[in-house]
Amino acid sequence: MTTSLEGIFVALTTPFDGEDIAPDRLRENVRRLNATGVAGYLVLGSTGESVSLTDAESLALVDAVLDAAAPDKKVLVGTAREWTKGTIDFTAALPARGVAAVLVRPPSYFKSKMTRDALKAHYLAVADASPHPVLVYNMPANTGISLEPGFVVDLAPHPNIIGLKESSGSIAFLEEVVRRVPEGFHYFVGSGHVVYPGLEMGASGAILAVANAAPDLCAEIFRRYKAGDKDRARELQLDLVPLNKALMETYGIAGLKHAQDLLGFCGGPTRLPLLPPTDAAKADIAALLKNLGL
Amino acid sequence: MTTSLEGIFVALTTPFDGEDIAPDRLRENVRRLNATGVAGYLVLGSTGESVSLTDAESLALVDAVLDAAAPDKKVLVGTAREWTKGTIDFTAALPARGVAAVLVRPPSYFKSKMTRDALKAHYLAVADASPHPVLVYNMPANTGISLEPGFVVDLAPHPNIIGLKESSGSIAFLEEVVRRVPEGFHYFVGSGHVVYPGLEMGASGAILAVANAAPDLCAEIFRRYKAGDKDRARELQLDLVPLNKALMETYGIAGLKHAQDLLGFCGGPTRLPLLPPTDAAKADIAALLKNLGL
Amino acid sequence: MTTSLEGIFVALTTPFDGEDIAPDRLRENVRRLNATGVAGYLVLGSTGESVSLTDAESLALVDAVLDAAAPDKKVLVGTAREWTKGTIDFTAALPARGVAAVLVRPPSYFKSKMTRDALKAHYLAVADASPHPVLVYNMPANTGISLEPGFVVDLAPHPNIIGLKESSGSIAFLEEVVRRVPEGFHYFVGSGHVVYPGLEMGASGAILAVANAAPDLCAEIFRRYKAGDKDRARELQLDLVPLNKALMETYGIAGLKHAQDLLGFCGGPTRLPLLPPTDAAKADIAALLKNLGL
Amino acid sequence: MTTSLEGIFVALTTPFDGEDIAPDRLRENVRRLNATGVAGYLVLGSTGESVSLTDAESLALVDAVLDAAAPDKKVLVGTAREWTKGTIDFTAALPARGVAAVLVRPPSYFKSKMTRDALKAHYLAVADASPHPVLVYNMPANTGISLEPGFVVDLAPHPNIIGLKESSGSIAFLEEVVRRVPEGFHYFVGSGHVVYPGLEMGASGAILAVANAAPDLCAEIFRRYKAGDKDRARELQLDLVPLNKALMETYGIAGLKHAQDLLGFCGGPTRLPLLPPTDAAKADIAALLKNLGL
Repeated sequence: MTTSLEGIFVALTTPFDGEDIAPDRLRENVRRLNATGVAGYLVLGSTGESVSLTDAESLALVDAVLDAAAPDKKVLVGTAREWTKGTIDFTAALPARGVAAVLVRPPSYFKSKMTRDALKAHYLAVADASPHPVLVYNMPANTGISLEPGFVVDLAPHPNIIGLKESSGSIAFLEEVVRRVPEGFHYFVGSGHVVYPGLEMGASGAILAVANAAPDLCAEIFRRYKAGDKDRARELQLDLVPLNKALMETYGIAGLKHAQDLLGFCGGPTRLPLLPPTDAAKADIAALLKNLGL
Repeated sequence: MTTSLEGIFVALTTPFDGEDIAPDRLRENVRRLNATGVAGYLVLGSTGESVSLTDAESLALVDAVLDAAAPDKKVLVGTAREWTKGTIDFTAALPARGVAAVLVRPPSYFKSKMTRDALKAHYLAVADASPHPVLVYNMPANTGISLEPGFVVDLAPHPNIIGLKESSGSIAFLEEVVRRVPEGFHYFVGSGHVVYPGLEMGASGAILAVANAAPDLCAEIFRRYKAGDKDRARELQLDLVPLNKALMETYGIAGLKHAQDLLGFCGGPTRLPLLPPTDAAKADIAALLKNLGL
Repeated sequence: MTTSLEGIFVALTTPFDGEDIAPDRLRENVRRLNATGVAGYLVLGSTGESVSLTDAESLALVDAVLDAAAPDKKVLVGTAREWTKGTIDFTAALPARGVAAVLVRPPSYFKSKMTRDALKAHYLAVADASPHPVLVYNMPANTGISLEPGFVVDLAPHPNIIGLKESSGSIAFLEEVVRRVPEGFHYFVGSGHVVYPGLEMGASGAILAVANAAPDLCAEIFRRYKAGDKDRARELQLDLVPLNKALMETYGIAGLKHAQDLLGFCGGPTRLPLLPPTDAAKADIAALLKNLGL
Repeated sequence: MTTSLEGIFVALTTPFDGEDIAPDRLRENVRRLNATGVAGYLVLGSTGESVSLTDAESLALVDAVLDAAAPDKKVLVGTAREWTKGTIDFTAALPARGVAAVLVRPPSYFKSKMTRDALKAHYLAVADASPHPVLVYNMPANTGISLEPGFVVDLAPHPNIIGLKESSGSIAFLEEVVRRVPEGFHYFVGSGHVVYPGLEMGASGAILAVANAAPDLCAEIFRRYKAGDKDRARELQLDLVPLNKALMETYGIAGLKHAQDLLGFCGGPTRLPLLPPTDAAKADIAALLKNLGL
């Protein structure tokens, strides 16, 4: 395996124009982000409302990102479907070049049957078939499925499984994984609250929704950490907390897109069933951005 | 509204042939079921592994059922997608004729944002747009979203929302809805454990996975209840409990399909990530069927 | 075992006078309830705020109820503590005469260690030691522990375990137990929503908080059911639903006690941490009582 | 406020001798721990099986610890009861001298009624009445109640509320609290997995069950962190993870006490309903201790 990934990845939002996707606006966002210190992009993640897109729309968005991303930025793609074959087929439909890895959350509709054996069979089948390296994705808040650290450790030796995105924000999870996986396994935290603590305990980086709104702040946490300036990394981490709480937890993707609008990115509306932010939410978000000097 | 639905509906399984769907086998199952006392069919329900199908496969299965269903059998279709427009578009793609109602479970990926307001906006948009009457679907075990009785009561006056399928098996839910909805609102229980108690407390009928394996037993509970023979209805209900527990809870869809195979229907394999039943599961299912004289 | 229990039991509230318990007022409540059709009383249940009482207070309340209860009314006592020995010791401290059975909920603080084996060891030790017959108590909303129907079936043959109070309101639970326990096992529903459906499916009766406020209505459901007048039993059941919902779920014990005050019983305040009802809650409760003609 | 607390506190186990508590053995444990670098002791915590003790036993154990603790070790006492008055009364019954602070977990039996208002009224009443400074205790795994960071921030200005023990292990919780509370507020992590990350993000220390078995290792994490040797603190933290996972999660208090026995402390049996460890658990624990060189 030669893929090496580290740093801050932006879990891109998906711009819409009325009822349609707006790939041009996504290109524009990516071009602006190219100028920041982020390591790359995740397209079709949870933040990208990937569950609210058709396959054709999804592939058009991947093309847009591959087209607009600067050569030094890595591109990750979310390809999970609720069934194994669907995940494999969609992964196979991606462009052959330019995809650094695919991110695969577990199937979750048949929750009570998603035993460790079932999930293992799923991930092994996907990893065997995928032309791209695979990142496992733990996202219990959305899926209702909590992967176990030991499950990730079991999957880690597979030659095409190169890492994990862990979005519960648990440092305990990281600690239970980090010494038990092969050298070069990539552990990405998926919560803006634990970028610095995650790095300090052994993470490779972070894949972050909040980085759509605060790419420089997120990238600076990573840069300072790598430079050995832990005190500053910690301070920046704590600076990020109120905005990350507001955009990821209190207001969600609609709030994040409003923050993008305020900052000159193309945020725009969410697709229903996600409702637009209220006026109070908008005012709160504006105040938080101002506090951060953004 | 002229649609009137009552009795037992079979939540059809989806037969596969290797990697492909097998519409012919589904037709065969429906033709055999036509000879039983069931009121109709649900195609593309949870039991039909609808989350593991492409749109094209889904439409082919609907065609097969519409084609094979006897004229006196009503056909319901599950059309939920994770986003509002996707649900509307797929519903619009159904054949214009022959669909008695569509069944729509709530979007559930963005759980923390699926507030009452968000879900209400979703259902009203779907109901406004749908050319077919809509049944709301409460399925907390799979979606992680529990609709409230009061939420259903709020939606019930919409002219295109004709009822509810409630799969948590709560009789309390039924009791909190049944006197507060317009005359003619259809309340279907979605658990084989509560067919008779549900009918007794005011349900119109039941939409049941276990009816793939035991259509006559399920239909007989309904028939006896309507005939005023409550004692026999109760006994048959209690007879059904062990099989329903095994197929719906312990072994799931893979177990249900194995039961179909044993009974001469076309069950066959599930799609991954659902694993096949173990040998012990198969033996247990065979014993349960034998106990019921099936 | 000669104990035979059936009908409606009132899960008594505990009157307080300032910071102290008020056994005289409890006696007064019981004397009024003696004139109704209820079968007996549960003292020191969840509704009695038993977790908010010292042992000395608890025993004084048991004495009051034993003293005031009419000879034809059976008295049940809640005796659960978080540990096995504590439960045994408190049970042993009860008066030797007059206690028809004790009600024992599972220990729940060490949730993740309350395996089936641990709970079985607990119940067997308590049942072996108890001078009074034991009713198992399933109360997941308060304990966070869901007993399984199969667990109850396993315990049922013990000569000193005579039944179950099941407060989740699940008719499925009842159906999975009722045919698999020895003749004479007492199954009590613990939710006012499922008195009639529970009786119809095989329950012996109900132990109800709402019966503090509506003893005659609750007793009449039972009487009509036993008399074969199922239609009237069902209507009365549906009549009870809004009040039961309000007092058990929306407003809780503080609301129930306010209802008692309005009806001439001694309700009075709850102990903190339970807060008193708001004015809006009081108005709602008054309206619900009026609707029922109480 | 003059209380200043920092460092590692041992959440003491409670030794039993047959059916009785064994205060002499607890004294012996404390005397051995006095020789380690821990900052003090928590008596009557969750680990002390405090929910399985009578009040008289509880007070005897407090006396034993106050008696045996070296003068430089601070003593914390868990005093929560399910009701406000009970908590106040038991707190008032503690010795007047020697108690550095009391630890109060939220009442949890009436879960659905433990609103923010109810919990706030409870904590304010306890803090007003307590002769000892109060630490709030978040312990969702056992109580089923998750305190919110904002709730803790609201309580923090109270002059007698001096800090928090947070046992969910969430670093996000810490980050949302640490900048919003008065100078001198004590934030203790309650999970052995996050001692070093907690300190790095602003915690005062940790209150740890695993410190019964590995007091020196725990204390060394703190010492290295304070000495600025973060690399070594991190390595020791990761060393601690497998033992902490085994004793706190997999095997629980019974496993922890077995580890104490192996290490020459007085561990001994748990009280039922906690079951003794299996032979496989014992072998696993022995291996983990050997790996750590203990």
